[in-house]
Amino acid sequence: MRIRRKPGTKEYLMASSLVINEPQAFQGRWQDFFQRENPLHVELGTGKGKFITTMAKLFGDVNYLGVEKVPEVLIKAVKKAELLGITNLAFLMLDVFQLPEVFAEGEVDRFYLNFSDPWPKARHAKRRLTNPKLLECYRKILKPGGEIHLKTDNEQFFEYSLNQFALQGWQLRNICLDMAQRGPEFNVTTEYEEKFREQGLKIYRLEAIKL
Amino acid sequence: MRIRRKPGTKEYLMASSLVINEPQAFQGRWQDFFQRENPLHVELGTGKGKFITTMAKLFGDVNYLGVEKVPEVLIKAVKKAELLGITNLAFLMLDVFQLPEVFAEGEVDRFYLNFSDPWPKARHAKRRLTNPKLLECYRKILKPGGEIHLKTDNEQFFEYSLNQFALQGWQLRNICLDMAQRGPEFNVTTEYEEKFREQGLKIYRLEAIKL
Repeated sequence: MRIRRKPGTKEYLMASSLVINEPQAFQGRWQDFFQRENPLHVELGTGKGKFITTMAKLFGDVNYLGVEKVPEVLIKAVKKAELLGITNLAFLMLDVFQLPEVFAEGEVDRFYLNFSDPWPKARHAKRRLTNPKLLECYRKILKPGGEIHLKTDNEQFFEYSLNQFALQGWQLRNICLDMAQRGPEFNVTTEYEEKFREQGLKIYRLEAIKL
Repeated sequence: MRIRRKPGTKEYLMASSLVINEPQAFQGRWQDFFQRENPLHVELGTGKGKFITTMAKLFGDVNYLGVEKVPEVLIKAVKKAELLGITNLAFLMLDVFQLPEVFAEGEVDRFYLNFSDPWPKARHAKRRLTNPKLLECYRKILKPGGEIHLKTDNEQFFEYSLNQFALQGWQLRNICLDMAQRGPEFNVTTEYEEKFREQGLKIYRLEAIKL
């Protein structure tokens, strides 16, 4: 999807108390930022924010961070969170490749990867959010026993991700090849997910644990 | 499928030199049986034998055993092998639960599970060829680094199998969710597989390695 640049978007984000302008300053001390010692769950590619705002509302005893690099998308998530008055959620406008600047080793309890861009062409494999380099990066940032929860509608991306996690020795768990048939009872959906469900598309899911 | 019993089938099988009537006698010394020190590959649920006879013909430096409990099915595999004059292949008429009586620990290099009965009902899970007890049994019989190669058209059985292997700490490899799209270049098909392919059904595949 081509994003139309809207004037004033970046200014809005920089002025919002929910967007952290210099996240590097909190590396290793995100507990201080939230002023509550809770597990830290980070969604990579937060999009319009339905998933993470719903989760933050449901689980007050978890600290949530949403990472999104596109300002015109992030602003929708931020406005959702502002409307709901959520205090255990903040947003980072950055690329996943910058994660090591923002998190210390072992600082994150869980990553969510929801309907990430599948980048189907082989020459774009290194942009997929489950490529070997990024998995290595997530592993460093996760606590021992930390988890990645992944959902996607894209069969090829799911297959690629399964293989990458398996190759790197992650413990796979709750692999699901059709959430409508055999998904978990509790499931917070994203905007994409609802659209795909209505179209009858299959949705895949897995959990990968850092051993 | 209900099998019609045919008189004379068991007698034919017992008389064939390709069917081993007392396989327990070779436990721990299958190399002696074949009189050649080659890797031992065992197909569980050989059916009508297209896969294993083709493999045995292609790979003369591997010893093959086909396990099939239904005489009326096994006889077709045996007749195929007899016609082809294959010498690195034999058949065992037994149930997979009898495997520990027939193989010593670490004796098998590879198991093939091709289009096993998915037993979709939850109460039949313990009959699935990838249930936890059988995986434990295969693990004992396999050499370290030994492999299980599984193909199926049944999504639910594939999902179940992925999860069981993952839970038991097998190394998963070459997971494929649609062999027609992204399968390996080399693939010997079974009778079922050809039928399913013609019908445009998806075929799933994985390899699991004993660590």
